[in-house]
Amino acid sequence: MIKRLSAEFLGTFWLVLGGCGSAVLAANFGGDGNPLGIGLLGVSLAFGLTVLTGAYAFGHISGGHFNPAVSFGLWAGGRFPVSELVPYIVAQVLGAILAGFVLWQVASGSALFAPDAAAAGNFATNGYGAMSPGGYGMTAALIIEVVLTAMFVVIIMGATHHKAPAALAPVAIGLALTLIHLISIPVTNTSVNPARSTGVALFGGGAAMGQLWLFWVAPIIGGIIGGGLYKWLGQDDAPAAAPAP
Amino acid sequence: MIKRLSAEFLGTFWLVLGGCGSAVLAANFGGDGNPLGIGLLGVSLAFGLTVLTGAYAFGHISGGHFNPAVSFGLWAGGRFPVSELVPYIVAQVLGAILAGFVLWQVASGSALFAPDAAAAGNFATNGYGAMSPGGYGMTAALIIEVVLTAMFVVIIMGATHHKAPAALAPVAIGLALTLIHLISIPVTNTSVNPARSTGVALFGGGAAMGQLWLFWVAPIIGGIIGGGLYKWLGQDDAPAAAPAP
Amino acid sequence: MIKRLSAEFLGTFWLVLGGCGSAVLAANFGGDGNPLGIGLLGVSLAFGLTVLTGAYAFGHISGGHFNPAVSFGLWAGGRFPVSELVPYIVAQVLGAILAGFVLWQVASGSALFAPDAAAAGNFATNGYGAMSPGGYGMTAALIIEVVLTAMFVVIIMGATHHKAPAALAPVAIGLALTLIHLISIPVTNTSVNPARSTGVALFGGGAAMGQLWLFWVAPIIGGIIGGGLYKWLGQDDAPAAAPAP
Amino acid sequence: MIKRLSAEFLGTFWLVLGGCGSAVLAANFGGDGNPLGIGLLGVSLAFGLTVLTGAYAFGHISGGHFNPAVSFGLWAGGRFPVSELVPYIVAQVLGAILAGFVLWQVASGSALFAPDAAAAGNFATNGYGAMSPGGYGMTAALIIEVVLTAMFVVIIMGATHHKAPAALAPVAIGLALTLIHLISIPVTNTSVNPARSTGVALFGGGAAMGQLWLFWVAPIIGGIIGGGLYKWLGQDDAPAAAPAP
Repeated sequence: MIKRLSAEFLGTFWLVLGGCGSAVLAANFGGDGNPLGIGLLGVSLAFGLTVLTGAYAFGHISGGHFNPAVSFGLWAGGRFPVSELVPYIVAQVLGAILAGFVLWQVASGSALFAPDAAAAGNFATNGYGAMSPGGYGMTAALIIEVVLTAMFVVIIMGATHHKAPAALAPVAIGLALTLIHLISIPVTNTSVNPARSTGVALFGGGAAMGQLWLFWVAPIIGGIIGGGLYKWLGQDDAPAAAPAP
Repeated sequence: MIKRLSAEFLGTFWLVLGGCGSAVLAANFGGDGNPLGIGLLGVSLAFGLTVLTGAYAFGHISGGHFNPAVSFGLWAGGRFPVSELVPYIVAQVLGAILAGFVLWQVASGSALFAPDAAAAGNFATNGYGAMSPGGYGMTAALIIEVVLTAMFVVIIMGATHHKAPAALAPVAIGLALTLIHLISIPVTNTSVNPARSTGVALFGGGAAMGQLWLFWVAPIIGGIIGGGLYKWLGQDDAPAAAPAP
Repeated sequence: MIKRLSAEFLGTFWLVLGGCGSAVLAANFGGDGNPLGIGLLGVSLAFGLTVLTGAYAFGHISGGHFNPAVSFGLWAGGRFPVSELVPYIVAQVLGAILAGFVLWQVASGSALFAPDAAAAGNFATNGYGAMSPGGYGMTAALIIEVVLTAMFVVIIMGATHHKAPAALAPVAIGLALTLIHLISIPVTNTSVNPARSTGVALFGGGAAMGQLWLFWVAPIIGGIIGGGLYKWLGQDDAPAAAPAP
Repeated sequence: MIKRLSAEFLGTFWLVLGGCGSAVLAANFGGDGNPLGIGLLGVSLAFGLTVLTGAYAFGHISGGHFNPAVSFGLWAGGRFPVSELVPYIVAQVLGAILAGFVLWQVASGSALFAPDAAAAGNFATNGYGAMSPGGYGMTAALIIEVVLTAMFVVIIMGATHHKAPAALAPVAIGLALTLIHLISIPVTNTSVNPARSTGVALFGGGAAMGQLWLFWVAPIIGGIIGGGLYKWLGQDDAPAAAPAP
């Protein structure tokens, strides 16, 4: 169990360090209007690649959730025991916090780093209303986080279904997270992952902490919807039928 | 059958939500000239990833068409029964419309969202002439939609041929859609998929509806050409020869 | 044989339509300085995806060369019979020319299209000196085209080696072409493929035709070097040893 | 052994030519503020694709390290014999130097190339303080290089673990290097590879050479940490149990 929790810890550390790190350090490199920076496309790719690479490295140890909403979703989908929900989530949140801490240390190493908690999306925090990168309100934030997390869990369950090619599941799941970011960074800075939101909100200031509840509630609701939906959808119509006597 | 149609419904929902969603919400983030936005490259990637991820998640349930032109093409290629064409297409169009509806709800959540039906490509609608992002006329639109849909179906049939590695087919097919968008967004905003065009045209205003016919006719003609072409090309020269007596 | 040549024809058509098409239609979308366009990164991705998707669709029919320099290289590497070099190359060049023709028809459909043969890299043609996108001279062009084609063939031979995972070879080969473009578009607009250069030079004007010789000579020399190099490198040190008596 | 060292030589040549070549030739194409250039995102992709393609081409010959820190890390992880460390590293450094030389020849072919050793990140060299692209100090450079190299080796060990799908390991490892660059180019121009740093520092001027020590020390420390960490993490809890009596 300690190795599985370590894998979740490291994988979530990697997700937040890579995804939020690329956003904080490289998205806007060179200042406003400079096309050298990686922009929202680069950040989307980075988030996806943390999961793609993490799933190949740690998936065979812990299953590679790296996300409380995914753990809840897989539980709802009948793929994960309720007894392991709490330890998995604790490991994920701790990994995310360590990543937030390391990222803060690195970012502070540049004179250009002047985080301002009042700015939307600062230190890669999630938010809505005044804290949304594109000024989207709470309703839009709720809809998008619920829908995208639900679809994320549907894809995870589908790509790891026994009829899908197991070796490619990390590609499908990682690139699904890239896709999710391509859609929704302007709305909420994209969470779909309460641990990721928590890991940077702790360092990103009070306004981010005040909105953190939404990025626990919406992704977990979405994850449970997705897990339940695919549980029905992916069920074989006929029982698996004794493959042999 | 209900599960297969649900898979087509959800997959097409995902295609339109992800592809058109990234275009509406993130392509031009920050306003004209701001390189933070994901641009046409990010939108192209998003469309491809909807199919890549959808095919891993739903492919083993419904075959993963998510597109009436693909269903027609596979029928022409001898891979899909004519009796299922109508139910598949109905499910696809309904999924696309739901995605258009959800996307409209989210986009409306920002004060910056001021859709104007007169603007080409607004709400990710497809068009030609004054509605083409780059001002391309109807002939160019017809050529590109027919040719690209034909090649799309050729690649789908080739990548799912019994001599090709089945596990990688979703990668080939999804990235083919990315490639198609990299070429042709400036021409028609890229359809190659009548359901995708319909899902957003319903919300994008009268001008888009008036041109919608082209994005049913051209992709379906292209799909049938591609299916017929590969049917000949991929046929084994020698009959498969009884593998066992 | 007719199906194999048809596959090479279609695959090279796809390579030129997709790679050069994205360059002509979408690279600079919106005009100078507009970040919506896909830029050199998008064009690089497009070229790679034509080969990735074409190799999955046609590889099991023709081997998926789509490039005279690759055919020469595989011959030098002992993987392709000399007797098929000429028919393969003819099919490739014809496919490339058809793509140039279709692309010209589509591009002409926009009032914004005003090709000027005097401009470097116009209609995606290859060139050096005044015709090089970044003003690189003939020596730099020769070095880069020889070296990159050699490495391209080395990767093709390595990724299709019997010890490498065959199902992933199209990913490795396609993305190698993306990488090659990421490096060298500024130098020569990137050829490494005489058919691709020919297909657009015929429509791109006299200056491009006058430099076309280099984009036949350098890639073919590079291909032969690469094929010969890997022939030695990939050879098993010990003979394969009778696996069964 | 000569073929294995040749494979490491060629693979590291490819890594530096492709990664640093795209940075020098294409990142800032068209000059400051021109969005046609591939930017940090394109360079990140290029570095990753050198390893992805190199690993498919050469991995079955040499294991595909292309990086002294990886060789050290795999030794620490119990996957590589200490007796081969020196020959592997010599081959890697020589390949990197040849790439630096070829790249210098090509880059000099443009009148626009005016390297200035005083400029941070010139000729794709790594640096900190005044030589850091974003002005990050030595502490930030040390932290990021150690942490990212450690995670790189963790992913390499995990993706090549006997429980992970071997055919996909080059995808995971190559894209991990892309991710690492997406995070850290602004900090140090990203090394995580002493051979890569050396290959361009030799041509990039005295200031780069004066900081080269950090890009040997930090990646090797990181590699050893990562190798040791995964050695514990990936160990089967139960002994592999005699698979056969």
